[in-house]
Amino acid sequence: MISVVIIGYGNVAQHLLKAFLKVDAVDVKQVYSRTLSKVSHLKNVSFTDDISKLIDADIYIIAVSDDAIPLVSSQINNKGLIVHTSGSVSIDSLKNKGNKGVMYPLQSFSKEKEINFNEVPFCLETQNSDDYQLLEKLTLFLSKKIFAINSKQRQRLHVAAVFVNNFTNHMYTIGQDICDEHNVPFEVLLPLIQEGASKIKFLHPKEAQTGPAIRKDKKTIENHLNLLNDKQQNIYKLLTKSIQNG
Amino acid sequence: MISVVIIGYGNVAQHLLKAFLKVDAVDVKQVYSRTLSKVSHLKNVSFTDDISKLIDADIYIIAVSDDAIPLVSSQINNKGLIVHTSGSVSIDSLKNKGNKGVMYPLQSFSKEKEINFNEVPFCLETQNSDDYQLLEKLTLFLSKKIFAINSKQRQRLHVAAVFVNNFTNHMYTIGQDICDEHNVPFEVLLPLIQEGASKIKFLHPKEAQTGPAIRKDKKTIENHLNLLNDKQQNIYKLLTKSIQNG
Repeated sequence: MISVVIIGYGNVAQHLLKAFLKVDAVDVKQVYSRTLSKVSHLKNVSFTDDISKLIDADIYIIAVSDDAIPLVSSQINNKGLIVHTSGSVSIDSLKNKGNKGVMYPLQSFSKEKEINFNEVPFCLETQNSDDYQLLEKLTLFLSKKIFAINSKQRQRLHVAAVFVNNFTNHMYTIGQDICDEHNVPFEVLLPLIQEGASKIKFLHPKEAQTGPAIRKDKKTIENHLNLLNDKQQNIYKLLTKSIQNG
Repeated sequence: MISVVIIGYGNVAQHLLKAFLKVDAVDVKQVYSRTLSKVSHLKNVSFTDDISKLIDADIYIIAVSDDAIPLVSSQINNKGLIVHTSGSVSIDSLKNKGNKGVMYPLQSFSKEKEINFNEVPFCLETQNSDDYQLLEKLTLFLSKKIFAINSKQRQRLHVAAVFVNNFTNHMYTIGQDICDEHNVPFEVLLPLIQEGASKIKFLHPKEAQTGPAIRKDKKTIENHLNLLNDKQQNIYKLLTKSIQNG
Protein backbone atom coordinates (compact mmCIF):
# COMPACT_ATOMS: atom_id res chain seq x y z
CA MET A 1 0.00 0.00 0.00
CA ILE A 2 1.32 3.45 -0.95
CA SER A 3 -0.24 6.48 0.73
CA VAL A 4 -0.63 9.68 -1.21
CA VAL A 5 -1.65 13.28 -0.56
CA ILE A 6 -2.64 15.37 -3.57
CA ILE A 7 -1.89 19.10 -3.41
CA GLY A 8 -4.06 21.14 -5.73
CA TYR A 9 -7.32 20.50 -7.48
CA GLY A 10 -6.85 21.63 -11.06
CA ASN A 11 -7.05 19.54 -14.20
CA VAL A 12 -4.09 17.25 -13.61
CA ALA A 13 -4.87 16.82 -9.91
CA GLN A 14 -8.46 15.82 -10.63
CA HIS A 15 -7.49 13.29 -13.28
CA LEU A 16 -4.80 11.77 -11.02
CA LEU A 17 -7.19 11.61 -8.07
CA LYS A 18 -9.84 9.89 -10.15
CA ALA A 19 -7.30 7.34 -11.40
CA PHE A 20 -5.77 6.62 -7.98
CA LEU A 21 -9.19 6.16 -6.36
CA LYS A 22 -9.63 3.13 -8.64
CA VAL A 23 -6.41 1.50 -7.42
CA ASP A 24 -6.77 -0.57 -4.22
CA ALA A 25 -3.06 -0.49 -3.48
CA VAL A 26 -3.00 3.31 -3.40
CA ASP A 27 -4.50 5.14 -0.44
CA VAL A 28 -5.32 8.77 -1.24
CA LYS A 29 -5.23 10.10 2.29
CA GLN A 30 -6.07 13.70 1.59
CA VAL A 31 -6.58 16.39 -1.02
CA TYR A 32 -5.49 19.96 -0.39
CA SER A 33 -7.13 22.86 -2.17
CA ARG A 34 -6.84 26.56 -1.38
CA THR A 35 -10.54 26.88 -2.00
CA LEU A 36 -12.34 24.33 0.11
CA SER A 37 -15.58 24.66 -1.82
CA LYS A 38 -14.04 23.16 -4.95
CA VAL A 39 -13.52 19.76 -3.34
CA SER A 40 -16.38 19.74 -0.86
CA HIS A 41 -18.54 17.52 -3.10
CA LEU A 42 -16.06 14.64 -2.86
CA LYS A 43 -17.09 11.72 -0.75
CA ASN A 44 -14.61 9.17 0.63
CA VAL A 45 -11.78 11.70 0.36
CA SER A 46 -10.51 13.78 3.22
CA PHE A 47 -9.73 17.34 2.20
CA THR A 48 -8.27 20.47 3.70
CA ASP A 49 -7.63 24.08 2.79
CA ASP A 50 -4.95 24.42 5.48
CA ILE A 51 -1.55 23.33 4.17
CA SER A 52 -0.14 23.21 7.70
CA LYS A 53 -2.51 20.34 8.48
CA LEU A 54 -1.42 17.80 5.88
CA ILE A 55 -1.65 14.15 6.92
CA ASP A 56 1.55 12.07 6.82
CA ALA A 57 1.89 10.05 3.62
CA ASP A 58 4.51 8.30 1.49
CA ILE A 59 4.19 10.68 -1.45
CA TYR A 60 2.88 14.24 -1.80
CA ILE A 61 1.93 15.13 -5.36
CA ILE A 62 1.96 18.86 -6.03
CA ALA A 63 -0.23 19.56 -9.06
CA VAL A 64 -0.55 23.34 -8.94
CA SER A 65 0.39 26.07 -11.44
CA ASP A 66 4.11 26.25 -12.27
CA ASP A 67 4.59 29.57 -10.51
CA ALA A 68 3.08 28.31 -7.25
CA ILE A 69 5.35 25.24 -6.93
CA PRO A 70 8.18 26.92 -4.93
CA LEU A 71 5.86 28.54 -2.37
CA VAL A 72 3.53 25.56 -1.95
CA SER A 73 6.42 23.10 -1.56
CA SER A 74 8.16 25.36 0.99
CA GLN A 75 5.08 25.12 3.19
CA ILE A 76 5.11 21.32 3.43
CA ASN A 77 6.97 20.17 6.51
CA ASN A 78 5.84 16.54 6.52
CA LYS A 79 8.28 13.72 5.83
CA GLY A 80 7.83 11.73 2.66
CA LEU A 81 8.67 12.24 -0.99
CA ILE A 82 7.37 15.48 -2.47
CA VAL A 83 6.96 15.57 -6.24
CA HIS A 84 5.56 18.05 -8.72
CA THR A 85 3.88 17.20 -12.04
CA SER A 86 5.13 20.01 -14.27
CA GLY A 87 6.92 19.61 -17.58
CA SER A 88 8.75 22.91 -17.54
CA VAL A 89 9.80 23.33 -13.90
CA SER A 90 13.12 22.00 -12.56
CA ILE A 91 13.24 19.62 -9.61
CA ASP A 92 15.18 22.40 -7.84
CA SER A 93 12.06 24.57 -7.75
CA LEU A 94 10.77 22.32 -4.99
CA LYS A 95 11.62 24.20 -1.78
CA ASN A 96 10.68 21.61 0.83
CA LYS A 97 13.45 20.39 3.11
CA GLY A 98 13.05 16.65 2.48
CA ASN A 99 13.08 14.42 -0.57
CA LYS A 100 12.12 15.78 -3.97
CA GLY A 101 10.99 14.36 -7.25
CA VAL A 102 9.03 14.91 -10.46
CA MET A 103 6.19 12.85 -11.91
CA TYR A 104 5.31 14.47 -15.23
CA PRO A 105 2.48 12.93 -17.22
CA LEU A 106 3.14 13.93 -20.82
CA GLN A 107 -0.35 14.35 -22.17
CA SER A 108 -2.70 17.28 -22.71
CA PHE A 109 -5.48 17.22 -20.16
CA SER A 110 -8.86 18.73 -20.75
CA LYS A 111 -11.60 18.84 -18.15
CA GLU A 112 -14.23 17.31 -20.41
CA LYS A 113 -12.36 14.27 -21.61
CA GLU A 114 -11.51 11.27 -19.47
CA ILE A 115 -7.85 10.28 -19.58
CA ASN A 116 -6.76 6.69 -20.14
CA PHE A 117 -3.55 6.78 -18.11
CA ASN A 118 -2.43 3.42 -19.57
CA GLU A 119 -1.50 5.37 -22.67
CA VAL A 120 0.19 8.27 -20.91
CA PRO A 121 4.00 8.37 -20.69
CA PHE A 122 5.26 9.43 -17.28
CA CYS A 123 8.63 11.18 -16.97
CA LEU A 124 10.08 10.50 -13.53
CA GLU A 125 12.96 12.15 -11.70
CA THR A 126 14.19 11.85 -8.11
CA GLN A 127 17.36 12.59 -6.16
CA ASN A 128 18.14 9.01 -5.16
CA SER A 129 17.31 5.50 -6.30
CA ASP A 130 15.13 4.57 -3.29
CA ASP A 131 12.84 7.48 -4.08
CA TYR A 132 12.87 6.51 -7.75
CA GLN A 133 11.76 2.99 -6.94
CA LEU A 134 8.94 4.27 -4.76
CA LEU A 135 7.76 6.78 -7.36
CA GLU A 136 8.02 4.19 -10.11
CA LYS A 137 6.00 1.72 -8.02
CA LEU A 138 3.24 4.30 -7.59
CA THR A 139 3.29 5.32 -11.24
CA LEU A 140 3.13 1.72 -12.46
CA PHE A 141 -0.39 1.51 -11.06
CA LEU A 142 -1.36 4.04 -13.72
CA SER A 143 0.90 3.37 -16.71
CA LYS A 144 3.63 1.08 -17.99
CA LYS A 145 5.14 3.88 -20.06
CA ILE A 146 7.71 5.19 -17.62
CA PHE A 147 10.82 7.13 -18.58
CA ALA A 148 13.67 8.39 -16.39
CA ILE A 149 14.04 11.98 -17.57
CA ASN A 150 16.10 14.62 -15.77
CA SER A 151 15.09 18.28 -15.42
CA LYS A 152 17.18 19.48 -18.35
CA GLN A 153 15.78 16.79 -20.64
CA ARG A 154 12.26 17.45 -19.41
CA GLN A 155 12.47 21.12 -20.31
CA ARG A 156 13.51 20.18 -23.85
CA LEU A 157 10.72 17.64 -24.04
CA HIS A 158 8.30 20.35 -23.01
CA VAL A 159 9.39 22.60 -25.89
CA ALA A 160 9.25 19.66 -28.27
CA ALA A 161 5.69 19.01 -27.05
CA VAL A 162 4.73 22.57 -27.97
CA PHE A 163 5.83 21.91 -31.55
CA VAL A 164 4.26 18.47 -31.97
CA ASN A 165 1.02 19.31 -30.15
CA ASN A 166 0.24 23.02 -29.76
CA PHE A 167 1.69 24.16 -33.08
CA THR A 168 0.30 21.14 -34.90
CA ASN A 169 -3.13 22.02 -33.57
CA HIS A 170 -2.66 25.54 -34.92
CA MET A 171 -1.98 24.02 -38.36
CA TYR A 172 -5.34 22.27 -38.03
CA THR A 173 -6.94 25.62 -37.16
CA ILE A 174 -5.52 27.28 -40.26
CA GLY A 175 -6.69 24.30 -42.33
CA GLN A 176 -10.18 24.73 -40.93
CA ASP A 177 -10.09 28.51 -41.58
CA ILE A 178 -9.24 27.88 -45.24
CA CYS A 179 -12.03 25.30 -45.54
CA ASP A 180 -14.58 27.56 -43.85
CA GLU A 181 -13.76 30.46 -46.18
CA HIS A 182 -14.60 28.31 -49.20
CA ASN A 183 -17.48 26.19 -47.90
CA VAL A 184 -15.45 23.00 -47.89
CA PRO A 185 -16.26 20.57 -45.06
CA PHE A 186 -13.21 20.25 -42.77
CA GLU A 187 -14.08 16.58 -42.21
CA VAL A 188 -12.69 15.83 -45.68
CA LEU A 189 -9.26 16.43 -44.11
CA LEU A 190 -9.70 14.26 -41.00
CA PRO A 191 -8.43 10.96 -42.47
CA LEU A 192 -5.33 12.73 -43.80
CA ILE A 193 -4.72 14.15 -40.33
CA GLN A 194 -5.09 10.74 -38.68
CA GLU A 195 -2.79 9.15 -41.24
CA GLY A 196 -0.17 11.85 -40.69
CA ALA A 197 -0.14 11.21 -36.96
CA SER A 198 -0.15 7.42 -37.42
CA LYS A 199 2.66 6.98 -39.87
CA ILE A 200 5.32 8.48 -37.60
CA LYS A 201 4.83 5.52 -35.29
CA PHE A 202 6.70 3.56 -37.96
CA LEU A 203 8.60 6.20 -39.94
CA HIS A 204 11.02 8.90 -38.83
CA PRO A 205 9.15 12.20 -39.43
CA LYS A 206 11.88 13.39 -41.77
CA GLU A 207 11.31 10.33 -43.96
CA ALA A 208 7.55 10.81 -43.78
CA GLN A 209 7.72 14.34 -45.20
CA THR A 210 5.67 14.81 -48.37
CA GLY A 211 4.24 17.81 -50.22
CA PRO A 212 5.32 20.63 -52.52
CA ALA A 213 8.03 22.00 -50.18
CA ILE A 214 10.11 18.83 -50.00
CA ARG A 215 9.52 18.19 -53.73
CA LYS A 216 10.69 21.76 -54.41
CA ASP A 217 7.57 22.11 -56.55
CA LYS A 218 7.80 25.88 -57.16
CA LYS A 219 4.71 26.07 -59.32
CA THR A 220 2.39 24.53 -56.72
CA ILE A 221 3.96 26.65 -53.96
CA GLU A 222 3.34 29.78 -56.04
CA ASN A 223 -0.28 28.75 -56.66
CA HIS A 224 -0.81 28.05 -52.98
CA LEU A 225 0.60 31.42 -51.88
CA ASN A 226 -1.84 33.18 -54.19
CA LEU A 227 -4.75 31.55 -52.34
CA LEU A 228 -3.67 32.63 -48.84
CA ASN A 229 -4.00 35.80 -46.78
CA ASP A 230 -0.91 37.65 -45.52
CA LYS A 231 -0.73 35.88 -42.18
CA GLN A 232 -1.16 32.45 -43.75
CA GLN A 233 1.42 33.33 -46.43
CA ASN A 234 4.06 34.21 -43.83
CA ILE A 235 3.62 30.87 -42.10
CA TYR A 236 3.53 28.97 -45.41
CA LYS A 237 6.76 30.64 -46.58
CA LEU A 238 8.68 30.13 -43.34
CA LEU A 239 7.72 26.46 -42.99
CA THR A 240 8.36 25.74 -46.67
CA LYS A 241 11.85 27.23 -46.30
CA SER A 242 12.44 25.27 -43.12
CA ILE A 243 11.41 21.99 -44.77
CA GLN A 244 13.65 22.70 -47.75
CA ASN A 245 16.65 23.50 -45.55
CA GLY A 246 16.24 20.16 -43.80
CA MET B 1 -19.83 -3.62 -64.71
CA ILE B 2 -17.77 -0.47 -65.19
CA SER B 3 -14.74 -0.66 -67.46
CA VAL B 4 -11.67 1.38 -66.63
CA VAL B 5 -8.34 2.26 -68.21
CA ILE B 6 -5.62 3.59 -65.93
CA ILE B 7 -3.17 6.07 -67.42
CA GLY B 8 0.12 6.23 -65.54
CA TYR B 9 1.83 3.90 -63.14
CA GLY B 10 3.01 6.07 -60.26
CA ASN B 11 2.00 5.82 -56.62
CA VAL B 12 -1.66 6.76 -56.96
CA ALA B 13 -2.14 4.69 -60.12
CA GLN B 14 -0.65 1.59 -58.52
CA HIS B 15 -2.79 1.88 -55.38
CA LEU B 16 -5.94 2.44 -57.46
CA LEU B 17 -5.12 -0.49 -59.73
CA LYS B 18 -4.55 -2.80 -56.78
CA ALA B 19 -7.87 -1.74 -55.24
CA PHE B 20 -9.90 -2.04 -58.45
CA LEU B 21 -8.48 -5.48 -59.21
CA LYS B 22 -10.23 -6.69 -56.04
CA VAL B 23 -13.65 -5.43 -57.20
CA ASP B 24 -15.54 -7.85 -59.44
CA ALA B 25 -17.83 -5.14 -60.80
CA VAL B 26 -14.89 -3.13 -62.11
CA ASP B 27 -13.04 -4.31 -65.20
CA VAL B 28 -9.57 -2.76 -65.49
CA LYS B 29 -9.18 -3.16 -69.21
CA GLN B 30 -5.73 -1.68 -69.58
CA VAL B 31 -2.88 0.20 -67.95
CA TYR B 32 -0.84 2.72 -69.88
CA SER B 33 2.71 3.54 -68.88
CA ARG B 34 5.31 5.46 -70.85
CA THR B 35 7.86 2.92 -69.75
CA LEU B 36 6.59 -0.52 -70.58
CA SER B 37 9.11 -2.26 -68.35
CA LYS B 38 7.55 -0.81 -65.20
CA VAL B 39 4.29 -2.71 -65.67
CA SER B 40 5.56 -5.79 -67.48
CA HIS B 41 5.49 -7.92 -64.31
CA LEU B 42 1.72 -7.55 -64.02
CA LYS B 43 -0.31 -10.60 -64.87
CA ASN B 44 -4.01 -10.46 -65.77
CA VAL B 45 -3.67 -6.82 -66.81
CA SER B 46 -3.26 -5.66 -70.35
CA PHE B 47 -0.79 -2.83 -70.69
CA THR B 48 0.55 -0.54 -73.35
CA ASP B 49 3.16 2.18 -73.80
CA ASP B 50 1.38 3.56 -76.87
CA ILE B 51 -1.30 6.07 -75.90
CA SER B 52 -2.81 5.97 -79.38
CA LYS B 53 -3.76 2.34 -78.74
CA LEU B 54 -5.99 2.70 -75.71
CA ILE B 55 -8.88 0.25 -75.46
CA ASP B 56 -12.42 1.68 -75.24
CA ALA B 57 -13.67 1.96 -71.65
CA ASP B 58 -16.27 3.79 -69.57
CA ILE B 59 -13.73 5.77 -67.56
CA TYR B 60 -10.10 6.74 -68.15
CA ILE B 61 -8.27 7.62 -64.97
CA ILE B 62 -5.24 9.84 -65.56
CA ALA B 63 -2.88 9.48 -62.60
CA VAL B 64 0.25 11.19 -63.87
CA SER B 65 2.23 14.20 -62.61
CA ASP B 66 0.28 17.48 -62.52
CA ASP B 67 2.31 19.01 -65.33
CA ALA B 68 1.69 16.10 -67.67
CA ILE B 69 -2.11 16.15 -67.38
CA PRO B 70 -2.83 18.60 -70.27
CA LEU B 71 -0.57 16.80 -72.75
CA VAL B 72 -1.60 13.27 -71.81
CA SER B 73 -5.31 14.09 -71.87
CA SER B 74 -5.00 15.81 -75.26
CA GLN B 75 -3.69 12.55 -76.71
CA ILE B 76 -6.73 10.50 -75.70
CA ASN B 77 -9.25 10.31 -78.51
CA ASN B 78 -11.43 7.52 -77.13
CA LYS B 79 -14.98 8.16 -76.04
CA GLY B 80 -15.77 7.82 -72.34
CA LEU B 81 -15.28 9.95 -69.26
CA ILE B 82 -11.70 11.11 -68.72
CA VAL B 83 -10.78 12.08 -65.17
CA HIS B 84 -7.59 13.12 -63.41
CA THR B 85 -6.71 12.43 -59.77
CA SER B 86 -4.89 15.64 -58.82
CA GLY B 87 -5.76 17.92 -55.93
CA SER B 88 -4.26 21.08 -57.34
CA VAL B 89 -5.15 20.92 -61.04
CA SER B 90 -8.39 22.38 -62.43
CA ILE B 91 -10.82 20.25 -64.42
CA ASP B 92 -10.08 22.65 -67.30
CA SER B 93 -6.54 21.33 -67.55
CA LEU B 94 -7.96 18.22 -69.17
CA LYS B 95 -7.51 18.82 -72.91
CA ASN B 96 -9.41 15.86 -74.34
CA LYS B 97 -12.40 16.63 -76.56
CA GLY B 98 -14.99 14.56 -74.67
CA ASN B 99 -16.27 14.39 -71.11
CA LYS B 100 -14.08 15.49 -68.23
CA GLY B 101 -13.97 14.94 -64.52
CA VAL B 102 -11.85 14.74 -61.37
CA MET B 103 -11.52 11.91 -58.88
CA TYR B 104 -9.20 13.18 -56.17
CA PRO B 105 -8.39 10.79 -53.31
CA LEU B 106 -7.42 13.04 -50.42
CA GLN B 107 -4.77 10.96 -48.69
CA SER B 108 -0.99 10.84 -48.74
CA PHE B 109 0.21 7.80 -50.61
CA SER B 110 3.50 6.15 -49.97
CA LYS B 111 4.82 3.21 -51.94
CA GLU B 112 5.57 1.09 -48.88
CA LYS B 113 2.26 1.32 -47.11
CA GLU B 114 -0.96 -0.31 -48.28
CA ILE B 115 -3.92 2.07 -48.48
CA ASN B 116 -7.28 1.21 -46.98
CA PHE B 117 -9.47 3.10 -49.45
CA ASN B 118 -12.53 2.69 -47.21
CA GLU B 119 -11.06 5.47 -45.10
CA VAL B 120 -10.08 7.76 -47.97
CA PRO B 121 -12.31 10.72 -48.87
CA PHE B 122 -12.78 11.14 -52.61
CA CYS B 123 -13.49 14.60 -54.04
CA LEU B 124 -15.44 14.26 -57.28
CA GLU B 125 -16.16 16.78 -60.01
CA THR B 126 -17.71 16.40 -63.46
CA GLN B 127 -19.33 18.63 -66.06
CA ASN B 128 -22.76 17.02 -65.97
CA SER B 129 -24.86 14.90 -63.64
CA ASP B 130 -24.77 11.70 -65.73
CA ASP B 131 -21.00 11.71 -65.55
CA TYR B 132 -21.18 12.43 -61.83
CA GLN B 133 -23.41 9.43 -61.26
CA LEU B 134 -21.07 7.18 -63.23
CA LEU B 135 -17.97 8.44 -61.41
CA GLU B 136 -19.71 8.18 -58.07
CA LYS B 137 -20.79 4.62 -58.84
CA LEU B 138 -17.18 3.67 -59.60
CA THR B 139 -15.81 5.45 -56.54
CA LEU B 140 -18.35 3.83 -54.23
CA PHE B 141 -16.64 0.48 -54.87
CA LEU B 142 -13.64 1.94 -53.02
CA SER B 143 -15.03 4.34 -50.42
CA LYS B 144 -18.26 5.68 -48.97
CA LYS B 145 -16.63 9.03 -48.21
CA ILE B 146 -17.53 10.94 -51.34
CA PHE B 147 -17.70 14.72 -51.61
CA ALA B 148 -18.78 16.89 -54.54
CA ILE B 149 -15.99 19.46 -54.69
CA ASN B 150 -15.45 21.88 -57.55
CA SER B 151 -12.05 22.92 -58.90
CA LYS B 152 -11.88 26.14 -56.90
CA GLN B 153 -12.77 24.38 -53.66
CA ARG B 154 -10.36 21.57 -54.41
CA GLN B 155 -7.46 23.98 -54.81
CA ARG B 156 -8.24 25.45 -51.37
CA LEU B 157 -8.53 21.99 -49.91
CA HIS B 158 -5.13 21.19 -51.34
CA VAL B 159 -3.55 24.18 -49.58
CA ALA B 160 -5.37 23.30 -46.37
CA ALA B 161 -3.97 19.77 -46.69
CA VAL B 162 -0.45 21.20 -46.83
CA PHE B 163 -1.03 22.88 -43.46
CA VAL B 164 -2.72 19.96 -41.69
CA ASN B 165 -0.44 17.28 -43.11
CA ASN B 166 2.90 18.49 -44.55
CA PHE B 167 3.48 21.33 -42.08
CA THR B 168 2.23 19.24 -39.18
CA ASN B 169 4.75 16.58 -40.12
CA HIS B 170 7.45 19.24 -40.10
CA MET B 171 6.44 20.09 -36.52
CA TYR B 172 7.01 16.43 -35.68
CA THR B 173 10.45 16.65 -37.33
CA ILE B 174 11.42 19.67 -35.21
CA GLY B 175 10.14 17.85 -32.12
CA GLN B 176 12.32 14.89 -32.99
CA ASP B 177 15.34 17.16 -33.64
CA ILE B 178 14.96 18.69 -30.17
CA CYS B 179 14.65 15.23 -28.59
CA ASP B 180 17.67 13.87 -30.47
CA GLU B 181 19.84 16.80 -29.40
CA HIS B 182 19.17 15.99 -25.76
CA ASN B 183 19.01 12.20 -25.79
CA VAL B 184 15.30 12.08 -25.09
CA PRO B 185 13.40 9.25 -26.80
CA PHE B 186 10.93 10.72 -29.32
CA GLU B 187 8.48 7.92 -28.50
CA VAL B 188 7.65 9.75 -25.25
CA LEU B 189 5.80 12.24 -27.48
CA LEU B 190 3.84 9.75 -29.58
CA PRO B 191 0.74 9.48 -27.34
CA LEU B 192 0.50 13.28 -27.20
CA ILE B 193 0.67 13.39 -30.99
CA GLN B 194 -2.06 10.76 -31.35
CA GLU B 195 -4.26 12.56 -28.82
CA GLY B 196 -3.79 15.86 -30.67
CA ALA B 197 -4.96 14.32 -33.93
CA SER B 198 -7.83 12.47 -32.26
CA LYS B 199 -9.45 15.25 -30.32
CA ILE B 200 -10.23 17.38 -33.37
CA LYS B 201 -12.66 14.68 -34.46
CA PHE B 202 -14.87 15.99 -31.64
CA LEU B 203 -13.60 19.52 -31.00
CA HIS B 204 -13.11 22.49 -33.32
CA PRO B 205 -9.29 22.93 -33.52
CA LYS B 206 -9.60 26.48 -32.20
CA GLU B 207 -11.29 25.14 -29.06
CA ALA B 208 -8.71 22.39 -28.76
CA GLN B 209 -5.80 24.84 -28.62
CA THR B 210 -3.66 24.51 -25.48
CA GLY B 211 -0.15 25.58 -24.50
CA PRO B 212 1.80 28.67 -23.45
CA ALA B 213 0.87 30.74 -26.54
CA ILE B 214 -2.89 30.65 -26.01
CA ARG B 215 -2.44 31.07 -22.24
CA LYS B 216 -0.21 34.09 -22.96
CA ASP B 217 2.31 32.52 -20.57
CA LYS B 218 5.22 34.87 -21.27
CA LYS B 219 7.60 33.26 -18.80
CA THR B 220 7.33 29.78 -20.34
CA ILE B 221 7.57 31.24 -23.86
CA GLU B 222 10.75 33.08 -22.85
CA ASN B 223 12.22 29.89 -21.33
CA HIS B 224 11.36 27.91 -24.44
CA LEU B 225 12.95 30.44 -26.79
CA ASN B 226 16.20 30.20 -24.82
CA LEU B 227 16.34 26.47 -25.53
CA LEU B 228 15.94 26.74 -29.31
CA ASN B 229 18.29 27.47 -32.21
CA ASP B 230 17.68 30.47 -34.49
CA LYS B 231 15.63 28.59 -37.05
CA GLN B 232 13.45 26.96 -34.39
CA GLN B 233 13.06 30.32 -32.62
CA ASN B 234 11.73 32.00 -35.77
CA ILE B 235 9.08 29.33 -36.20
CA TYR B 236 8.21 29.35 -32.49
CA LYS B 237 7.78 33.14 -32.50
CA LEU B 238 5.70 33.31 -35.66
CA LEU B 239 3.34 30.51 -34.63
CA THR B 240 2.98 31.83 -31.07
CA LYS B 241 2.02 35.23 -32.49
CA SER B 242 -0.41 33.63 -34.91
CA ILE B 243 -2.09 31.63 -32.12
CA GLN B 244 -2.37 34.73 -29.97
CA ASN B 245 -3.90 36.79 -32.76
CA GLY B 246 -6.56 34.11 -33.28
